[in-house]
Amino acid sequence: MNRTKNYLLGYKDLYIYQTDGMFKFSLDSVLLPNFVTINKRISNILDIGTGNGPIPLILSTKTKAKIVGVEIQKEVAKLAEDSVLENKLNDQIKIINDDINYYYKYEESEKYDIITCNPPFFNSKQIKNESEYKTLARHEKTLTLERMVLISRKLLKNKGIMAIVHRPERMVEIFLLMRENNIEPKRIRFVYPTINKEANVILIEGMKNGHPGLKIMPPLYVYGKDMKYTEEIESYLKG
Amino acid sequence: MNRTKNYLLGYKDLYIYQTDGMFKFSLDSVLLPNFVTINKRISNILDIGTGNGPIPLILSTKTKAKIVGVEIQKEVAKLAEDSVLENKLNDQIKIINDDINYYYKYEESEKYDIITCNPPFFNSKQIKNESEYKTLARHEKTLTLERMVLISRKLLKNKGIMAIVHRPERMVEIFLLMRENNIEPKRIRFVYPTINKEANVILIEGMKNGHPGLKIMPPLYVYGKDMKYTEEIESYLKG
Repeated sequence: MNRTKNYLLGYKDLYIYQTDGMFKFSLDSVLLPNFVTINKRISNILDIGTGNGPIPLILSTKTKAKIVGVEIQKEVAKLAEDSVLENKLNDQIKIINDDINYYYKYEESEKYDIITCNPPFFNSKQIKNESEYKTLARHEKTLTLERMVLISRKLLKNKGIMAIVHRPERMVEIFLLMRENNIEPKRIRFVYPTINKEANVILIEGMKNGHPGLKIMPPLYVYGKDMKYTEEIESYLKG
Repeated sequence: MNRTKNYLLGYKDLYIYQTDGMFKFSLDSVLLPNFVTINKRISNILDIGTGNGPIPLILSTKTKAKIVGVEIQKEVAKLAEDSVLENKLNDQIKIINDDINYYYKYEESEKYDIITCNPPFFNSKQIKNESEYKTLARHEKTLTLERMVLISRKLLKNKGIMAIVHRPERMVEIFLLMRENNIEPKRIRFVYPTINKEANVILIEGMKNGHPGLKIMPPLYVYGKDMKYTEEIESYLKG
């Protein structure tokens, strides 16, 4: 497969390895680290299903916290690892090639301030004929929403933040699962492809043992009327 | 109290009675009837906590369906009744002065295609020193969210629509109560006071026995950059 070293979109001096046939990061992976609430007290971040590492890489520009990315697929995790080395971020970012469903059992409870996840979007019933790489990354074969919330419940500190990017049609289910696991939805932002369209992406922050009370942040548009990226998206892509 | 006969905002030839000290309708009551999905098959609509009747009055410009408005406060219900008569809508709109918590028990099950509600927004813990009228209208003293969903479950036809306007911070609770009562959240629109502000109003449609799958409609802004009403709001106010 063709392996290419790319700039992580336009992020200054930040590189990412990806392969044409296997794995490319998506805009969702740029939106999430730009949405999550970062403050100076944060010391540990976990990115579940890290892929080739875009979320840890972007987060490294925003915080000095230690970041762990867990990726089930060996070759994809290798891309992430190589990107970390290429960017000389190996003191800050650790990539683990494992299934989070196993890994979390041996991980210290209540270790993380933030858990991010750009999860598989479709459930297993919707699996089509795609390469196994894409299938694992895009479908809920190895990581269901339910598992993700359960894992976050164990690994998050009290008042820690779970931040995910997902599809709006799953919002009710996400809320229910979070509530059942004492993770209170606190902050939401909807992403609209352009004005007058329905939202196609939801960004959610939930807080472990948080009090009820939800904020709906201003809408985020991807494209303007001219069908070019909006200023906000441009600013993300420039880093 | 000063009773005034007003145009229902700018709705052509549509009048509404209100009193300065007692009761004035709000923008929320204009947003909801402009949000709810109306089609030609609809024959019965119920508006819970109808106040001085803005929702039934506006709905009458959009559908020929029979509309029932239930209002607990005698003097407020009288305003609604008088407005119905003034507008010669007494064949279409019936105002009932009763507590919906009693009324629904004697009402036919599965009668309604649509139930609308602009409910009291605060819970009883937040009651401040206000006139009893306003307290009843604005606080969850007589009508909790839970009761409202339970009542809708009984009175809605299969696949009937419950449409409410509420505050975004209660969204998680609304979703949970709807799900528990087989009313599936299907369509949401957030209302933002202006760009770059958090949403302060949520419009929700849930469908009785509906399949999961939620749509987030384009955002609705109340004021533009010039701090005048946006075109969409103006069009609602003009009727």
